[in-house]
Amino acid sequence: MKPLGHKVWAIPGGHIPLRSTGRQPEFTSHDRLSILNTGDEEAQVEMTLFYADRDPIGPYPLTVEPRRVRVVRFNDLIDPEAVPLDTDYACVLESSVPVVVQFTRQDTRQAENALLSVMAFAVD
Amino acid sequence: MKPLGHKVWAIPGGHIPLRSTGRQPEFTSHDRLSILNTGDEEAQVEMTLFYADRDPIGPYPLTVEPRRVRVVRFNDLIDPEAVPLDTDYACVLESSVPVVVQFTRQDTRQAENALLSVMAFAVD
Amino acid sequence: MKPLGHKVWAIPGGHIPLRSTGRQPEFTSHDRLSILNTGDEEAQVEMTLFYADRDPIGPYPLTVEPRRVRVVRFNDLIDPEAVPLDTDYACVLESSVPVVVQFTRQDTRQAENALLSVMAFAVD
Amino acid sequence: MKPLGHKVWAIPGGHIPLRSTGRQPEFTSHDRLSILNTGDEEAQVEMTLFYADRDPIGPYPLTVEPRRVRVVRFNDLIDPEAVPLDTDYACVLESSVPVVVQFTRQDTRQAENALLSVMAFAVD
Repeated sequence: MKPLGHKVWAIPGGHIPLRSTGRQPEFTSHDRLSILNTGDEEAQVEMTLFYADRDPIGPYPLTVEPRRVRVVRFNDLIDPEAVPLDTDYACVLESSVPVVVQFTRQDTRQAENALLSVMAFAVD
Repeated sequence: MKPLGHKVWAIPGGHIPLRSTGRQPEFTSHDRLSILNTGDEEAQVEMTLFYADRDPIGPYPLTVEPRRVRVVRFNDLIDPEAVPLDTDYACVLESSVPVVVQFTRQDTRQAENALLSVMAFAVD
Repeated sequence: MKPLGHKVWAIPGGHIPLRSTGRQPEFTSHDRLSILNTGDEEAQVEMTLFYADRDPIGPYPLTVEPRRVRVVRFNDLIDPEAVPLDTDYACVLESSVPVVVQFTRQDTRQAENALLSVMAFAVD
Repeated sequence: MKPLGHKVWAIPGGHIPLRSTGRQPEFTSHDRLSILNTGDEEAQVEMTLFYADRDPIGPYPLTVEPRRVRVVRFNDLIDPEAVPLDTDYACVLESSVPVVVQFTRQDTRQAENALLSVMAFAVD
């Protein structure tokens, strides 16, 4: 299968909830990206995070193997810097090959979890 | 009405929750696709599922009759292989005629259900 | 302001939950469309509903005044036919002028409500 | 990084829930926009709100600094007019430079919150 999608994607509405309820890691509040690489070549991905009151942080490098999906929790990013909780951020993802990107939040601040998801916005 | 939509769609963020609460099948945790075929010709659809750590599985064949919507629960797919629960996957759907595709999750791991939905990403 | 948007939109994933919990109409389970007409001309809209196992039903006519948003609950449609509860359906909306369309579900089958929303898919 | 996105965005489905449950402001029911400006120039943004039964209200002016994300709660808008609660509205956002815009609702009318999110619709 040929590589499907786009090389640059943006998600404006990042925000990892501060608190969580329930067993970890299953019910931990988190933001995550699902990155699909349908092609035959490894995707070399760099993410840059934007904030409300300071300069962007990045790149956060990662790879997605050919014909694989990779899920990345923003909570787990540490290099060059951990993502602060309870803080608005946006993400721009740039890939060496076309990919498709979906953004999902699990919010367990309360006993019953809430979910939201959007397809990231393809900007190329 | 003419056939509306696109022939290739992608959903990166599949993940069927492991547990369910409440009466089955109404409250069973599930991922589903809603495939709309507005045209006069049967849609011959093939889905391929991508995983994080193994090769893609497929094709999962199905048809959507002319002027019909068809809802497919990923939980119900068995040929060529059942979709494992609590596992990240992505889906690429290819159709012989244009269709429109929406993805929805019902998560009933807890007593009160949570929902998310996205339009699939049109990649042609 | 000029008319913004598209003239044909599709929503594959309609399904009005059967049960509701809480005060009506605020907490009634429902599917709804929000139709924005930014232009100076009335939008003459026709909706057609597609089902899994019978022919499409429509048109459902409605108008959106210039420079207005109109919210339509599928539960309230009666002409040419009420929309059955707990039944999968899809919707194609055709407008005489460009509009922008968002689809939202409120699910109150359980004590705590769940929400989902997608932008409808622009097919022209 | 160059400015990514579009200059005109629309969100048809605004509606701030009337009631809230839990600590303020964290659990206040609200609608919000996340506006990402990846470029080197300040974004001068004007929002216009559309209603079901009266003329549009606006412009609501705001700025987004270069290489920043800005989150705006509709509940906090006061000039030229506060946004009424429990009322359907739509929003058109026009920016002097390309931006990317995501819309999110937090609904805490009940003890357990519900979330929805959509990417705004790019109309240029």
